[in-house]
Amino acid sequence: MADKPSIPKGTRDFSPLEMARRNHIFDTIRRIFKVHGFLPIETPAMENLSTLMGKYGDEGDKLLFKILNSGDFKSKLSPEELSETPAGRLGTKISEKGLRYDLTVPFARYVVQHRNEIDFPFKRYQIQPVWRADRPQRGRYREFYQCDVDVIGSNSLLNEFELIQIIDEVFQALSLKVVIKLNNRKVLAGCAEVIGAPEQMIDITVAIDKLEKIGLEKVLAELVQKGLSPDSVTKLEPLLKMEGSTAEKLIFLAGFLEGSELGMAGLQEVRTLLAYVEADPLGSEVELDLTLARGLNYYTGSILEVKSAEYAIGSICGGGRYDDLTGIFGLEGVSGVGVSFGADRIYDVLLQLERFPQRGDLDTRLLFVNFGEAEVKHIIPILGRLRKSGIASELYPDQTKMKKQMNYANNRKIPFVALLGEQEIADGMITLKDMETGMQERLTPEQLVERISSAK
Amino acid sequence: MADKPSIPKGTRDFSPLEMARRNHIFDTIRRIFKVHGFLPIETPAMENLSTLMGKYGDEGDKLLFKILNSGDFKSKLSPEELSETPAGRLGTKISEKGLRYDLTVPFARYVVQHRNEIDFPFKRYQIQPVWRADRPQRGRYREFYQCDVDVIGSNSLLNEFELIQIIDEVFQALSLKVVIKLNNRKVLAGCAEVIGAPEQMIDITVAIDKLEKIGLEKVLAELVQKGLSPDSVTKLEPLLKMEGSTAEKLIFLAGFLEGSELGMAGLQEVRTLLAYVEADPLGSEVELDLTLARGLNYYTGSILEVKSAEYAIGSICGGGRYDDLTGIFGLEGVSGVGVSFGADRIYDVLLQLERFPQRGDLDTRLLFVNFGEAEVKHIIPILGRLRKSGIASELYPDQTKMKKQMNYANNRKIPFVALLGEQEIADGMITLKDMETGMQERLTPEQLVERISSAK
Repeated sequence: MADKPSIPKGTRDFSPLEMARRNHIFDTIRRIFKVHGFLPIETPAMENLSTLMGKYGDEGDKLLFKILNSGDFKSKLSPEELSETPAGRLGTKISEKGLRYDLTVPFARYVVQHRNEIDFPFKRYQIQPVWRADRPQRGRYREFYQCDVDVIGSNSLLNEFELIQIIDEVFQALSLKVVIKLNNRKVLAGCAEVIGAPEQMIDITVAIDKLEKIGLEKVLAELVQKGLSPDSVTKLEPLLKMEGSTAEKLIFLAGFLEGSELGMAGLQEVRTLLAYVEADPLGSEVELDLTLARGLNYYTGSILEVKSAEYAIGSICGGGRYDDLTGIFGLEGVSGVGVSFGADRIYDVLLQLERFPQRGDLDTRLLFVNFGEAEVKHIIPILGRLRKSGIASELYPDQTKMKKQMNYANNRKIPFVALLGEQEIADGMITLKDMETGMQERLTPEQLVERISSAK
Repeated sequence: MADKPSIPKGTRDFSPLEMARRNHIFDTIRRIFKVHGFLPIETPAMENLSTLMGKYGDEGDKLLFKILNSGDFKSKLSPEELSETPAGRLGTKISEKGLRYDLTVPFARYVVQHRNEIDFPFKRYQIQPVWRADRPQRGRYREFYQCDVDVIGSNSLLNEFELIQIIDEVFQALSLKVVIKLNNRKVLAGCAEVIGAPEQMIDITVAIDKLEKIGLEKVLAELVQKGLSPDSVTKLEPLLKMEGSTAEKLIFLAGFLEGSELGMAGLQEVRTLLAYVEADPLGSEVELDLTLARGLNYYTGSILEVKSAEYAIGSICGGGRYDDLTGIFGLEGVSGVGVSFGADRIYDVLLQLERFPQRGDLDTRLLFVNFGEAEVKHIIPILGRLRKSGIASELYPDQTKMKKQMNYANNRKIPFVALLGEQEIADGMITLKDMETGMQERLTPEQLVERISSAK
């Protein structure tokens, strides 16, 4: 036999069991997006390289999968160009399209391209795969789904609040306990301002993040090394020593940020958002976390990140507000806010905590054993009736050994097997076997539908 | 402003409205696949070129989208190789992966690769996009979804029957009247055998197909031209003159095919299949159609094709039995049968006949007007209650002019608008406006949930 075929590294096949579990996640997320009035869109897997290049930094450009132009892609190139151009630049000469790297840039492109058809504020969600030529490793794939939800064209903090509600509802529906961490770029910028180091906002945030791990002394030393003046370090110390609940932190920050208009504006945003949360309390905890440094180079206001409260795996959802998403495509002044759910990590958490439902809604509930042509004719209409009642049911297609057919039922975890032989045909009855208890009972077709419908 | 961004030719963005319509098709198909016990799988967008090449003929190989190897893709090639190799061969040197061209070859690869984990017979469905570097034209895209359902590892005609049932149920659920056309390669081969022209099965089938259009004389002339002997032509004439119902055709064929064992076997398959259909009559018409030449170079038994009975657009679903799908990957002797639904054409038929449902299940039903912060705090818990009852509802995020907010409701076709101002807060009531009739009523939050739930 030939070598077993394989798939490109970093990609995956999804088996029926994996699909059932993934759909449990996606269906839950989709249901909650919809009940909040978000609308789905899809964009093509391939985008023009001119759309993608330069949007993810140099490193990102290298991670784009480029598609070779079709036909005689090198006819317009001289032999010199072919052999002397560096591979990267040759790549863009023989390739005009690439696979999307995320859903954000295609969404920005979509909004600009279709702006005259869109009703703003535009509440959209998008669940599609993305591709990155990253080095594959545990938990990092070259093809993976992103699951994005954004509101574009509205500055209101009600949008942030709605995203927090969505996060809360999704993880409650998935039976996962999470902590929703909240930060605000304006608060961070304000902190950097009041200590006289406005350029070093990111250094400061990264330092705060290390506090628990390396302690106050080492953090301060690191900041000095990064060029923070002794005066700034002294002013920063009270912030680093800040403790207590989110309410207590807010009180402290109101004093700390007093000299910064931007910082106070950020603080007011945090307060407003938390007041919304109080108006209809969530199942999940929301906490202010100044160490949240996610996307500081593009988020302009609120920053959100979600962690499992039960299993350590990093962020399972996150996002924030960006004030100029569509500017890269020439449409200025459109503010947006969105979060992205990490389907692969959520999958891992559900699997580790054994929180996937035992069976899918429509797994096969009943298998008819195939005894031969005469019996099959009697089974067909009964099968039709079961399916019309929404009961997923099958007839084993081949007339083979009973053992083989029962093995199929066992392996597929089908809970009921129906037997319809000569005697049953004569009596108009069906023998139903419960595969778990082994119990058998004789039922009319009506009783059969009733019995399977009412079984858990 | 910069040039409006665009997408590669032959690809599409799907707007929320298009998504709702496409999901109506996919959800219907998926629901019916599931109730028949079919299981979903997904395979990666990228396959190794070694998996794809040579499976679709020379023409197909040219239509594969190839992905440029990442990193320094040309470092292993000499300048001579780069400039002198024809583009096609250079392509395979700087590219090892391609986008899938259909779902059949990846499925065959999947079955071989995972054969030890699969419970046969394997009833699988797969709904994913495929890519072809075809010249784009009306109704032909470079990225489009396929929607395949197959049973692999069983020879039983019950599988063909189940596929016919699925076809019938899908199109009934979509409110489309269709004709399911049935043919059998063995019957066609038998016909070619009994007239002494076994090599010319395809010529004969194609000729029969032209009968209505060009008439008997011209068809016979064409067959002579294709090298059919006068004796064969004479023997073929009665077949070309065959008329009547499917039952009458079966009687005629029983005589015509008498000399061919293969032909009689095919005829018996058709009879068995039609007997199954009689055991639980369908809503759609099933007819034997010897002119069905679909996939004659790979189907080995039953051939199926579905046409709309109301709108001329070509085949909207089709498939057949193939006896050696996995042989290309070294696993011999596994028979399969499957059909593929043409989502884009089904979409066009539904659109032309105006059979799409008026509104999606979860379109937004209710919009709260935003009068300001004080009112918002009262709206938030009511909104939570509506959503918990499964009612998709929104609060306009910005406190802007009433007209702008009402326009949003109008454009989004939201049927109800809720007003909650000072007076309503004092009374604990909500003013509900029916956007179609313009009627207003005052309701408690409980009555509001009740009212929206019971509205059509």
